[in-house]
Amino acid sequence: MKISVERATLLKAVGQAQSVVERRNTIPILANVLIEAEGDTVSFRATDLDIEVVDKASAMVERAGATTVSAVTLHEIVRKLPDGAMVQLTDDGAAGRLTVEAGRSNFSLATLPKEDFPVMASSEYDANFSAKAPVLRRLFDKSKFAISTEETRYYLNGVYMHVSDADGGKVLRCVATDGHRLARIDAELPAGAENLPGVIVPRKTVGELRKLLDDDDTEVAVSVSETKVRFATPDITLTSKVIDGTFPDYTRVIPQGNTKKMEVDASEFAQAVDRVATVSSERSRAVKLALGEDKLVLSVNAPDAGAAEEELVVAYGDEPLEIGFNAKYLLEIASQVDRENAVFMFDSSGQPVLMREGNDTSAVYVVMPMRV
Amino acid sequence: MKISVERATLLKAVGQAQSVVERRNTIPILANVLIEAEGDTVSFRATDLDIEVVDKASAMVERAGATTVSAVTLHEIVRKLPDGAMVQLTDDGAAGRLTVEAGRSNFSLATLPKEDFPVMASSEYDANFSAKAPVLRRLFDKSKFAISTEETRYYLNGVYMHVSDADGGKVLRCVATDGHRLARIDAELPAGAENLPGVIVPRKTVGELRKLLDDDDTEVAVSVSETKVRFATPDITLTSKVIDGTFPDYTRVIPQGNTKKMEVDASEFAQAVDRVATVSSERSRAVKLALGEDKLVLSVNAPDAGAAEEELVVAYGDEPLEIGFNAKYLLEIASQVDRENAVFMFDSSGQPVLMREGNDTSAVYVVMPMRV
Repeated sequence: MKISVERATLLKAVGQAQSVVERRNTIPILANVLIEAEGDTVSFRATDLDIEVVDKASAMVERAGATTVSAVTLHEIVRKLPDGAMVQLTDDGAAGRLTVEAGRSNFSLATLPKEDFPVMASSEYDANFSAKAPVLRRLFDKSKFAISTEETRYYLNGVYMHVSDADGGKVLRCVATDGHRLARIDAELPAGAENLPGVIVPRKTVGELRKLLDDDDTEVAVSVSETKVRFATPDITLTSKVIDGTFPDYTRVIPQGNTKKMEVDASEFAQAVDRVATVSSERSRAVKLALGEDKLVLSVNAPDAGAAEEELVVAYGDEPLEIGFNAKYLLEIASQVDRENAVFMFDSSGQPVLMREGNDTSAVYVVMPMRV
Repeated sequence: MKISVERATLLKAVGQAQSVVERRNTIPILANVLIEAEGDTVSFRATDLDIEVVDKASAMVERAGATTVSAVTLHEIVRKLPDGAMVQLTDDGAAGRLTVEAGRSNFSLATLPKEDFPVMASSEYDANFSAKAPVLRRLFDKSKFAISTEETRYYLNGVYMHVSDADGGKVLRCVATDGHRLARIDAELPAGAENLPGVIVPRKTVGELRKLLDDDDTEVAVSVSETKVRFATPDITLTSKVIDGTFPDYTRVIPQGNTKKMEVDASEFAQAVDRVATVSSERSRAVKLALGEDKLVLSVNAPDAGAAEEELVVAYGDEPLEIGFNAKYLLEIASQVDRENAVFMFDSSGQPVLMREGNDTSAVYVVMPMRV
């Protein structure tokens, strides 16, 4: 293999591949990136055995071939090369070295045989559809905060992507919950997604996927089977196993009979919650909401440190209500609101609250109350 | 006590005081800040028993008085209040609470009696002088990277500030070393500093002092005794114990007979060192410098990972020389150079190297070599 690539192009491709590589590996080859050059393209492939990412870049390929080198070292080197540099990668199979040259810099990196690299088996997919980056971004960005970190409840360690019925017909839906709060985000069902099997997309995959979605104009090809999910842009293909488990029946958690409606400016609400929570100890962070006519009083009482109280003007016309929540959970859902006022639907102090943006039911959040 | 202070003013004063407070305290009062209001001024005093900082701010004092509250909590609250808010602090001695009010926010914080707060004893100082912020900034900024972190060599855990002889007469000098590298920075001797006893200013004090020096126009009053050092601006007074130990005779470490001179662009040099060090393992990071006529070859050889080499154009006219250094140490001294080329003076591969900016001997660095 002998190729030349422009430094910025190389940095982007290697950067996206190396982020999948786990920092601590017991299997040496998993620390490496597989470089394959052919035609006028070089591809960089990295995996942690659960996720595989392949990045393609244009290159001048003088001699086709393939090898593997440390993903982190290659990325660090390319990052430190001066902007605009032309980088030459030359594989010396006999010596087991890859030479990286740019200007007066010359690196010789240890390689491992390309045959040892675990390439993920290709699959048949049950559903193939295409979605704009902003659609996928919204589905995952607004749900991922609720993903559970409890490893024993592994089936909650991801976002449940599936097809569901909603008021307007079928939708593509993402749900995440950790048992304390839940996010349910809907999008119009793309053509070809009708047969989508419900899959739990792991937390790390959600994080890696996010990097493919920065550009609003990107059209992403999504393929889903019962065991795998794949997201592909013209340059990057991200393939991931899905979590082998059953996502619980979340619909029972979403309150249907909450009738006490409070409407509040989401940013004012979040700032007030953040302020009153200051006096509380790190762990509990319980905030009490006391609702009266068009008035919300937020308060925290921490016997050791002190107390805090703040009043907000809200729209509320039902009977007075007192209810407590974890401050962090309130902050997180309030920060999802970006267009309209936050609408909270309460039932009683022991029942979960439902939150949405204005009258939009395509993004719905549920938070369990806390005794205060 | 009952006072009103503008939020930005309060944030600045509390911010500077609270940064001295240690996050983990076994003595509760040390987590608090002492608030004292009198006339048209409020002061915030914080200490870790070694350093004391007093910040003054203008306030409308309705009722004079003093109390103590958690520095971190007060700072967090003020930080989260909306910009432009007027903040009212009211002490209720009987209830043991301080009320913080701003707009519709209301906090009640637990207080501890002001009598329990350990105020640092005032001292007689042997030398009092005044210096512009940029002068002190240069003295400490350019030396602090070399401070030792080895607690057993406590006498190296700070910057040694003293009066010394230099070519042009007496100078105010700061020296720091960890035994592997050394920084020696000189400034013109300010009037009044002639009787300055040599003191070792602790690392934490150097860090806190830095916050007083951001504004180029600030005139700082410096007072030094054998046990204490004080830096004062119109708003802030920082008093610190000095390290009770003897700084070693650093002059013997500074090579006098190095005659092989290499001149190099400091930024190019630093970038090249950084690049070749990429292939080396975190710990050793030895970089070899091979000097030939107007040519420097930097190289690293890491048996596992690979090798790296880079050539630089330098000004060098002496006999060829090979010498090894810790990459981190080279990077740190090269990053101190801000105006001219870096001039390195070598002797042999076993002897320390001396570095300065151009022909300026008021900032001199020494690095011990490593076997490569």
